Amino acid sequence: MIVVMKHGCNQRHIDQVVAVIVQGGARPMISQGEDTTIIGVIGINHQVLPEDLRACEFVSRVIPISAPYKLASRALHPADSVIAAAPKNGVPMTVGGGNIAIIGGPCTVESEEQIVTAARQVRDAGGSALRGGAYKPRTSPYSFQGHKLDGLKMLAAAREETGLAIVTELLSIDQADLVAEYADVIQIGARNMQNYPLLEAAGLLKKPVLLKRGLCATLTEFLLAAEYILVRGNEQVILCERGVRTFETETRFTLSLSSIPILQEKSHLPVITDPSHGTGVASLVRPMSRASLAAGADGLIIEVHPDPSHARVDGDQSITADVFEQIVKDSILMADMLGKKLGNGCLVKPTAAIF
Amino acid sequence: MIVVMKHGCNQRHIDQVVAVIVQGGARPMISQGEDTTIIGVIGINHQVLPEDLRACEFVSRVIPISAPYKLASRALHPADSVIAAAPKNGVPMTVGGGNIAIIGGPCTVESEEQIVTAARQVRDAGGSALRGGAYKPRTSPYSFQGHKLDGLKMLAAAREETGLAIVTELLSIDQADLVAEYADVIQIGARNMQNYPLLEAAGLLKKPVLLKRGLCATLTEFLLAAEYILVRGNEQVILCERGVRTFETETRFTLSLSSIPILQEKSHLPVITDPSHGTGVASLVRPMSRASLAAGADGLIIEVHPDPSHARVDGDQSITADVFEQIVKDSILMADMLGKKLGNGCLVKPTAAIF
Amino acid sequence: MIVVMKHGCNQRHIDQVVAVIVQGGARPMISQGEDTTIIGVIGINHQVLPEDLRACEFVSRVIPISAPYKLASRALHPADSVIAAAPKNGVPMTVGGGNIAIIGGPCTVESEEQIVTAARQVRDAGGSALRGGAYKPRTSPYSFQGHKLDGLKMLAAAREETGLAIVTELLSIDQADLVAEYADVIQIGARNMQNYPLLEAAGLLKKPVLLKRGLCATLTEFLLAAEYILVRGNEQVILCERGVRTFETETRFTLSLSSIPILQEKSHLPVITDPSHGTGVASLVRPMSRASLAAGADGLIIEVHPDPSHARVDGDQSITADVFEQIVKDSILMADMLGKKLGNGCLVKPTAAIF
Amino acid sequence: MIVVMKHGCNQRHIDQVVAVIVQGGARPMISQGEDTTIIGVIGINHQVLPEDLRACEFVSRVIPISAPYKLASRALHPADSVIAAAPKNGVPMTVGGGNIAIIGGPCTVESEEQIVTAARQVRDAGGSALRGGAYKPRTSPYSFQGHKLDGLKMLAAAREETGLAIVTELLSIDQADLVAEYADVIQIGARNMQNYPLLEAAGLLKKPVLLKRGLCATLTEFLLAAEYILVRGNEQVILCERGVRTFETETRFTLSLSSIPILQEKSHLPVITDPSHGTGVASLVRPMSRASLAAGADGLIIEVHPDPSHARVDGDQSITADVFEQIVKDSILMADMLGKKLGNGCLVKPTAAIF
Repeated sequence: MIVVMKHGCNQRHIDQVVAVIVQGGARPMISQGEDTTIIGVIGINHQVLPEDLRACEFVSRVIPISAPYKLASRALHPADSVIAAAPKNGVPMTVGGGNIAIIGGPCTVESEEQIVTAARQVRDAGGSALRGGAYKPRTSPYSFQGHKLDGLKMLAAAREETGLAIVTELLSIDQADLVAEYADVIQIGARNMQNYPLLEAAGLLKKPVLLKRGLCATLTEFLLAAEYILVRGNEQVILCERGVRTFETETRFTLSLSSIPILQEKSHLPVITDPSHGTGVASLVRPMSRASLAAGADGLIIEVHPDPSHARVDGDQSITADVFEQIVKDSILMADMLGKKLGNGCLVKPTAAIF
Repeated sequence: MIVVMKHGCNQRHIDQVVAVIVQGGARPMISQGEDTTIIGVIGINHQVLPEDLRACEFVSRVIPISAPYKLASRALHPADSVIAAAPKNGVPMTVGGGNIAIIGGPCTVESEEQIVTAARQVRDAGGSALRGGAYKPRTSPYSFQGHKLDGLKMLAAAREETGLAIVTELLSIDQADLVAEYADVIQIGARNMQNYPLLEAAGLLKKPVLLKRGLCATLTEFLLAAEYILVRGNEQVILCERGVRTFETETRFTLSLSSIPILQEKSHLPVITDPSHGTGVASLVRPMSRASLAAGADGLIIEVHPDPSHARVDGDQSITADVFEQIVKDSILMADMLGKKLGNGCLVKPTAAIF
Repeated sequence: MIVVMKHGCNQRHIDQVVAVIVQGGARPMISQGEDTTIIGVIGINHQVLPEDLRACEFVSRVIPISAPYKLASRALHPADSVIAAAPKNGVPMTVGGGNIAIIGGPCTVESEEQIVTAARQVRDAGGSALRGGAYKPRTSPYSFQGHKLDGLKMLAAAREETGLAIVTELLSIDQADLVAEYADVIQIGARNMQNYPLLEAAGLLKKPVLLKRGLCATLTEFLLAAEYILVRGNEQVILCERGVRTFETETRFTLSLSSIPILQEKSHLPVITDPSHGTGVASLVRPMSRASLAAGADGLIIEVHPDPSHARVDGDQSITADVFEQIVKDSILMADMLGKKLGNGCLVKPTAAIF
Repeated sequence: MIVVMKHGCNQRHIDQVVAVIVQGGARPMISQGEDTTIIGVIGINHQVLPEDLRACEFVSRVIPISAPYKLASRALHPADSVIAAAPKNGVPMTVGGGNIAIIGGPCTVESEEQIVTAARQVRDAGGSALRGGAYKPRTSPYSFQGHKLDGLKMLAAAREETGLAIVTELLSIDQADLVAEYADVIQIGARNMQNYPLLEAAGLLKKPVLLKRGLCATLTEFLLAAEYILVRGNEQVILCERGVRTFETETRFTLSLSSIPILQEKSHLPVITDPSHGTGVASLVRPMSRASLAAGADGLIIEVHPDPSHARVDGDQSITADVFEQIVKDSILMADMLGKKLGNGCLVKPTAAIF
């Protein structure tokens, strides 16, 4: 950290800052310019907090230099994390380190027939895993909130039928064990990115966590949310860019693809995108899927519905199985171009055979 | 709602939309222009969902006309809600309907001595209630997370000493009953504005809820979050504008004061602001407090610390007791100018006598 | 400035940065930490450019410490600038240094009758100056673009009739002399805040300039735009906050009132707000006018139309003369509370007499 | 357009709206619901203005249905526009309709040697045209503003040497003819996107115009800016997404790639991106270039500098000739995958031969 003092500070003010630095186990480095005094905080593993420095008198600014996250940082873990979700007797999904996962499925589990149909379509198209919400966070208390436990059971039936790993959302700490029992990958939604008790609960589970970026979270806040999970012992975190809120009105959110290479530079965790929620417009899902992979994404999570025009939730951004199949084909070509491969185990071969 | 069809739609597409409208219990009203077909959804208390319409083929846009919230809406509750928090043997805080509440206190409860000192300062300055965090949501897992139950007990001691109502944050559903036992007003933080299980839990408590606006929540989303609480039976919701995230870097957030009159036009619930978190800069707290009341706010929640330069959290935006007293005096003048009064019961008289 | 080096930099990289600093006339100050090297740029009036440093190898970040503007800065001009516009034989408008100016008038000059009527209403209500557009920047090429030279003549007629100073927009460098001949204050619109040839042209004129903040300009960019005018010799610049673009959809823009005290801390120039364009909603103009002055604004520029429901431009945000009169009365009370006064010369007395 | 009336409107209010509609040459279509009255504006080529409707009493909202631009709209011009810039005796650059243009060069023309070297590098790497600024819009009046006429002459020398078309910025209406004399493509910068006199001047020139999106412009405003040029008779407009301003601090701007397919759906004009300014970070230029083309972009404009570490402007976002060559190779692969081709005439063959 660097502490910039205000004009007019005197030795007493400098001493106060120095005392905070020394107490925290670091070494101060004072640069006295003609009109500004700057104090560097030198040292590793020190405990000096920016808020303690900011609270000192005559401190103008405290500028962080090192990243505030440790376990999520690539500095301490240079190799890509490769995360696998392997349902028993099923098809392992692998993501990161050159493995691309294409997760598909409806926003919400509506019925066993619907989710099993969707799962077959996703598998036949070459998808890596099945998504579907049993517990749904909805903006309005009057909207459909999901089939809950019944929905989890329907997802299990779809896995039984197709072998696909299940990605489903955890909304509340009191459902953590139940959801973890059924899910192969636990999703934490954008609106819960800073729900710290939920992150801590996810950190105690033994399943990979797909963590979505908050609607206006900075990348540092996003990585700190991942850190909450990692620090509890769960090292299997998949980051998901899903669009941020801007003044743009043509799309529901602005999918920020530059976050992919930035996150990958800062962190070893895999980074996927959600072009369905990230745009909210079905016709944009395919081009933004291609663009995500071209920017280096380790995977995609896409809303596919057997019959988008009768989806109970988010029908306007769901695509059909046909378009999903095109996206998987695009992804194989793109993976090839980038020296990567689709990370969906045994499914790769038959799908590749389609071409 | 109004459904705008895409160019090239035919009778079959129109019939599909009409069927959805009729099934939902509403009446369609078709306007066929030279180049655009528009279908109105006519009726009250119907069950037609925008997502069902949006999912129909050849639908270009679905434009909502009525507000999606009911209990929060002023349409169904024209009079201002007046919300009171009355600690036993203490001083009631009243907010709304011409009553202005000035809540002060440190970001975090650090020690019994600190919080009791702060409470005395707030009371002596003419404040309406004491704020202080026992459970703290922190961006980093390595930051101080609050004294938890001990913190709640310190707050109770401060109330015992000063008679001030206690405003403190509820972070997790498993602490709901505990926090409600100690708090007079339960705060839901900005990062939890769309934590629906937490909103539902707050809706079952018998204490007023101070709900902060999410960092990038629209006003409709904010009122729908309040609706989650109201629909469970808790009618005592105080809305709090606390700044939204923009490109601005001089302040931590952009305190959007136009949201005050807009929320008051749409809803009967009281609206207060948090100029401390809303700016993140101590020197801006007083002018933005004045501006909030001038825009019509029903109150303020302000960080005051006995010794801001030693605050463990957010010291850079905390003000001293002296500045807080100036803000209370400003508020009395402003209330007078606007035909309102400070809603802090017995405290009003002595404070007014200061002048 | 502070230069933060990347991990792995060696002496050669440090030497390269040091060379750039020395060549620019400054002194380097090197802090070598365990894992990071930081180089301070010490000196005043040096010519070291951030872009030259950023371009050196192994430079991670260049952090500016001093403000990049000089003439706009309060550091070099501690006293408030007081700016006066005095039409010959008319009523001087004064703004800054405790003088509040309330500028009113229609968005666009539509006819001599309209603008003269509006001017009389503004004067009779106690307003300080008349606004009205002769040249209009319109988002669509098909919208009405103003009466141009005829509009300027109509404004002159309104000044002749009422004595009020005229505030009107300059859109293009080839109209600079013409507009300056008719106007008492030259407005530069938000969309032209970074139209540098226009700023330079305004810097050569002998009339005060009312510079509006760009729709997504940072406060530093805003002050640098003022600097473009000041550096050409025109020291009479009035800053105008007029709302920034955010995700908010209830208002056309988000009027950011915290920018008022921030700009006043950084700069000696007067700061006014435009609550009409800043919200785009007529019912919000009065509360946001009050809030602006409460936040410390030196004035207001407000759209008033003799008949808002027949305004050719921006009728939805225009208020009537009655509401304008209420705003002037609010402003007198607010000025009194803050130890300021309305800066409209001889008009102050008769207006005050109204009460 | 659709006019939504407020609660409590009566026949007189409806009649007022109807009168405005009829006067403008359209037909009203009234839908009277239980609680809301909605009036559609039916007709093509009518002159009813939203502002006239909004200004009527008891009008709650006016919702536009048709696009406000005509000439830029794909509705009236279904085929892709293909735009070519053909320097005499040089290499034509073609963009749009399946032709991808890769424009490269330094931010600023610094010397004849620098620009000729850069031009050779761009040509040898397979680039389509040379960019370079002679007139530079700079945030600070103290920054280098470009070599102006001398810079134009240096660009001409580089074209003479390499045959590449020249893309350079027009800043001011009084330089329009001069810049058009030297340039093959005239750039209008983001800060001038709503500088209407400049757009009108560009509309009278006989050269293609590369129009950059404003920093916080909506896509409708962007297309209306293009309309200003088209309506004056210049049909050769290339749209350029260059990033919008958000809360993100890791990049200078947020490059919004979903704008590419949206603009292409709404308009026939070619759409390119500027990943250099759009991110401000050299290491992001290559992945975001790939992602842009994957999203469907018709081209790229990229900052390449013979020696980025000595660039006088924007060195931190400039890439070397080597990286530029990789981007051209990526682009050829991507074009092939998407059934497109690089639109740089004779250069295509030798470049393709490299592989």
